[in-house]
Amino acid sequence: MEYPSKLVEKAVEEIAKLPGIGKKTALRLVLHILNRPEEDTTSLSEALIDLRQNIKYCNTCHIIGDTDECTCMTMNRDTSIICVVEGTTDAMAIRNTGQYNGLYHVLGGRISPMDGIGPDNIRIDSLIDRIKNNSEIKEIILALSGTMEGDTTAFYITKLLKGHDVKVTSIARGIPVGGELEYADEVTLGRSIMTRTLFES
Amino acid sequence: MEYPSKLVEKAVEEIAKLPGIGKKTALRLVLHILNRPEEDTTSLSEALIDLRQNIKYCNTCHIIGDTDECTCMTMNRDTSIICVVEGTTDAMAIRNTGQYNGLYHVLGGRISPMDGIGPDNIRIDSLIDRIKNNSEIKEIILALSGTMEGDTTAFYITKLLKGHDVKVTSIARGIPVGGELEYADEVTLGRSIMTRTLFES
Repeated sequence: MEYPSKLVEKAVEEIAKLPGIGKKTALRLVLHILNRPEEDTTSLSEALIDLRQNIKYCNTCHIIGDTDECTCMTMNRDTSIICVVEGTTDAMAIRNTGQYNGLYHVLGGRISPMDGIGPDNIRIDSLIDRIKNNSEIKEIILALSGTMEGDTTAFYITKLLKGHDVKVTSIARGIPVGGELEYADEVTLGRSIMTRTLFES
Repeated sequence: MEYPSKLVEKAVEEIAKLPGIGKKTALRLVLHILNRPEEDTTSLSEALIDLRQNIKYCNTCHIIGDTDECTCMTMNRDTSIICVVEGTTDAMAIRNTGQYNGLYHVLGGRISPMDGIGPDNIRIDSLIDRIKNNSEIKEIILALSGTMEGDTTAFYITKLLKGHDVKVTSIARGIPVGGELEYADEVTLGRSIMTRTLFES
């Protein structure tokens, strides 16, 4: 598409680099920005630069935060369990369930040879160190995605922890709450029978 | 949702002000930005600020551009026709068809009493002035949206031009190329019969 202005073209190109935003959407955003007061653009741009320059990652759990040490070790948490997740959003989602009050460990991805991501590219070493150096930790919950890459990552971590006095569990795979059996795929349904739980009435 | 960082929260809020972007998408964009080099964020922010501060609108046709006078009056255009559109994207879309080589006039909206937009809020006056002051213009094509607001705007402009020696036309309303008749609404189908054209073989 031919743009009426170099400034529009440049802005569209920059916005369209973001995931899930094509050039048409980017153009719509550009025209929206032009219709809004200049302060809106300034505060958007400043928020992005501020974010990128000043964000910190907790040295222990690697969750995104405003300081080098997040609140992961304080706030009355159960410090004997670590929930291992791929990204910060996963940790946020689990925290929002209200069902978990332990610690977190953000791997920053999953093992995916197809994408050139090996065990050294994600924070598995620091997880193992964290468990080795802290005898208080009794359990780690693997809350990884239910894909081949997620499973590979889970197997790799489990293998490294063999011989350590720590229980390794995984979040349950099964039929979602409210889900119909007939629409579930066979693997999930099979797994939900294999890992059936005691019905509590 | 509770955010792990004030910076993330602020950036999510700013991004979510853009149309069609909710807080979940905004969070995904924020995490993407954090995974990319700092230069990417800088160039995105600079492009937006540069756009907002330095964009110009052509004094004649009101199309977005880099200067006060766009190329609308040059470039071997047919200067006897003006195509009236609601926004710059419409003009771009028409130009991209390659079927039109005349001038444009961007109204900057359409008459919509429900939204408090009257004839004075869009650039109808400057269109009338443009036609009055230039006897070269023989035709104006109304390329407005096929909604009640678009029709109202079209009627209003037509009324103002009564008595002027200028032909007022509208883009054709009908069945889209490649469209099935059975899925078309009655009004469109009816209009496509009323305004049928000579079949050229």
